Amino acid sequence: MEIFSADQIEAIHLASLAVLRDTGMNFMLPEAVDILTREGARVDDDGIRVHFDPEMVMEKIRTVPGEFTLHARDPANSVRMGRDNIVFSCVASTPNVSDLDRGRLTGNLEDFRNLLRLTQSLNTAQVVGGYPVEPVDTDVRLRHLICVSEMAKLTSKPLSGYSLGRERIEDAIEIVRIARGIDHETLLREPSIHSIVNANSPLVYDKPMLLGAMILAEHNQAVVYTPFTLSGAMAPITIAGALVQQNAEALAGLVFSQCVNPGAPAIYGSFTSNVDMKTGSPAFGTPEYAKATIASGQLARKYGVPLRASNATASNAPDAQAAYESQMSLWACVMGGVNYVKHGLGWLEGGLCTNYEKFIIDAEMVQMMIAFLEPAVVDEDALAVAAIDGVGPASHYFQSPHTMARYETAFYTPMLSDWRNFETWEDAGSVDATRRANGIWKQLLAEYEPPPMDSAIEEELDAFVARRTAEGGAPPL
Amino acid sequence: MEIFSADQIEAIHLASLAVLRDTGMNFMLPEAVDILTREGARVDDDGIRVHFDPEMVMEKIRTVPGEFTLHARDPANSVRMGRDNIVFSCVASTPNVSDLDRGRLTGNLEDFRNLLRLTQSLNTAQVVGGYPVEPVDTDVRLRHLICVSEMAKLTSKPLSGYSLGRERIEDAIEIVRIARGIDHETLLREPSIHSIVNANSPLVYDKPMLLGAMILAEHNQAVVYTPFTLSGAMAPITIAGALVQQNAEALAGLVFSQCVNPGAPAIYGSFTSNVDMKTGSPAFGTPEYAKATIASGQLARKYGVPLRASNATASNAPDAQAAYESQMSLWACVMGGVNYVKHGLGWLEGGLCTNYEKFIIDAEMVQMMIAFLEPAVVDEDALAVAAIDGVGPASHYFQSPHTMARYETAFYTPMLSDWRNFETWEDAGSVDATRRANGIWKQLLAEYEPPPMDSAIEEELDAFVARRTAEGGAPPL
Repeated sequence: MEIFSADQIEAIHLASLAVLRDTGMNFMLPEAVDILTREGARVDDDGIRVHFDPEMVMEKIRTVPGEFTLHARDPANSVRMGRDNIVFSCVASTPNVSDLDRGRLTGNLEDFRNLLRLTQSLNTAQVVGGYPVEPVDTDVRLRHLICVSEMAKLTSKPLSGYSLGRERIEDAIEIVRIARGIDHETLLREPSIHSIVNANSPLVYDKPMLLGAMILAEHNQAVVYTPFTLSGAMAPITIAGALVQQNAEALAGLVFSQCVNPGAPAIYGSFTSNVDMKTGSPAFGTPEYAKATIASGQLARKYGVPLRASNATASNAPDAQAAYESQMSLWACVMGGVNYVKHGLGWLEGGLCTNYEKFIIDAEMVQMMIAFLEPAVVDEDALAVAAIDGVGPASHYFQSPHTMARYETAFYTPMLSDWRNFETWEDAGSVDATRRANGIWKQLLAEYEPPPMDSAIEEELDAFVARRTAEGGAPPL
Repeated sequence: MEIFSADQIEAIHLASLAVLRDTGMNFMLPEAVDILTREGARVDDDGIRVHFDPEMVMEKIRTVPGEFTLHARDPANSVRMGRDNIVFSCVASTPNVSDLDRGRLTGNLEDFRNLLRLTQSLNTAQVVGGYPVEPVDTDVRLRHLICVSEMAKLTSKPLSGYSLGRERIEDAIEIVRIARGIDHETLLREPSIHSIVNANSPLVYDKPMLLGAMILAEHNQAVVYTPFTLSGAMAPITIAGALVQQNAEALAGLVFSQCVNPGAPAIYGSFTSNVDMKTGSPAFGTPEYAKATIASGQLARKYGVPLRASNATASNAPDAQAAYESQMSLWACVMGGVNYVKHGLGWLEGGLCTNYEKFIIDAEMVQMMIAFLEPAVVDEDALAVAAIDGVGPASHYFQSPHTMARYETAFYTPMLSDWRNFETWEDAGSVDATRRANGIWKQLLAEYEPPPMDSAIEEELDAFVARRTAEGGAPPL
């Protein structure tokens, strides 16, 4: 879907190029500034403010792959990123976790593990988009070793690591390589891990993230450059202005990736939403969010690069608001041609909490979207003119041969939605969707089986983690 | 949005013309059969099965107005139906009503009145789509007199009546004419009431509805021809086949309206959804419903006629399921270019219940859609290049002059959504969206003021109702 005219998109594009040329952007890693200036960017006397000429921007982003495979340790779970593909990930990086039984808790390793088990179990979660909750009860120096190795063992889907300095991302890359059972050369050919690199909006890329982005690009691994452009706070209060800034920051990230390693997989990240101007609170799944996401699709298609956005809501409970704000986000993603829907399952509270029931509600909503995107067949058989004539007026289709031949697979089958009539539903206890979701995630956890892993690979993985743990892990940031 | 190719839509179109020609459709009113055969249709020996040649169908529907005004007694509330317009109505025709405090009750006059008060108060309910709940505690012979006069007094929005035989629709037309304070000639020029005429699918139009449709067309009032094509039950189990049947039945209705009175306003009704094949229960807001609604938009645009669909869900509670199924319905309506979204506010249980909290949840969702559909401005001021340069990196926009000049009106302001942070929300009692909705409808009812009505008009209205009541109203069906 297009929400802006071609002229309007061109105006946003040109304005963002003007921002990159005239205002420029701060790159807080000297090594990154060196790479960019070597490739034609200009830097101010402060050594951090980098300016990009429009020609350089457009030339550099030409080598961003329009589509690539993100490999999983189970090849059946590898996904295509870009063009006409759409994939959904579990929620990532929340500091809290909640469910109906326990209420809200600080993120911890046991919930981290359980949320990975749900991610593995649900075919609507196709990518591990990050830590599904931050395990705050682990040593910050060892957390990445614990977390990425747990992700590699508990799931067999494409993984992610955090671009927080050199050691963490190098360790994550190595764990993913070991888990896939491939050598270093194969890893350099096959993107096997991805990482989000946020701009510290407005117009700053911080040092630890740039370092991670650089190392990932050197290894031909995928980086999602996502400006944090909340309109009215970290970006202009107009949607057009926020998009100009988002586009400038995202393009700067894509340019950086290609300066490091031309052809390295990189994704345009869209996260433009707005704040509540009365309180300053971020809002998600708003009309503004939907417009910005669909417009981002127009921009990403103009550049021929993959696009990431999110399934987001500001609701504090897994309630009707969470559902309708997430639906606004999901429809905007689908209508915008988003390739990678991050936080696809489980996000609540504007990203400050992962909620188990919301995880299941999202799984149902994503499953409905996938069914919606499956083209309906239109052929002589489906048009059913003979069946209509056979049934005729004042009858029904329940016993029609046309129905009997198809009834088992004809329609979408829900996991969470309850379509029984009121009386039957009431007799069964009047259980609403959120409480049904509570039962579903418990059943999924009870039925979870870890994906098989070769014992030699598991030993190598454990040995690597043990060695790096003995070495002290990664320094605190 | 288009979900089928032009070739596929043409195939559905041609198949439905073949159904109308070969299978035909039962018209249970001899007068209707006479009108149709006089205009070129053929009837079988049974006197009810009518066959239409494709040429007749295409010629007759040419006179359906692509757009028309549906007049309200307050001219500011008149709406445009068709083309690029979209309007939403309150829910209609449910036998039950429910809220969080009282649970589920049989429809009654007091709730009927309260739901009309909400319809009047909310600018997201632009049309009174029917009785917002069936007042079962009123005499069935007098119900239409009570209900339509209450609709005319408690609201000042475009009204509707039921096509259930001659007396009911003639009384409804007369009440609407009196309420608008216009003479009969003006009424014949200005569509001032609308009515749903359902096909008794498959392939039947019943006698009382045809009689109502005929009288409305004679008076140049609007009729919405809506086949009840639940895929797998009253229509083929394939979406393409259900659309073929829907299209055949809707076209037959449109043809009938134009045979009665060329140029009479008529609307193509889409209601194709599917049943749960395990239980036979109707399902709404499903992927199939979304596909069928968007495809209906392609068909209606092909014919240049206004389109009606619904904001529907099968959920039994105003919960997350109700919200996400309704969002699927609403997005399909918007993406399908639907002109008249019936049941826009308050529908629950597949149409068997009106729920007060759902009414408010829907009002919020509809309001978000309306804000989404407002085009974002893209001009030099909105692009904000100077503002971005003025703020620069590592800063924020809260105090920027560009922000200060716009912050009061920049963003969508919700009625129901709570964007406060978790701690503030928790301190305020952790009230979820459905319980907040409970407070909102009570406040709206407390603040309701009836729209002013000229005392002479009110007297004329009361006198008419008193006379028709004394005459015994309308016979039971």
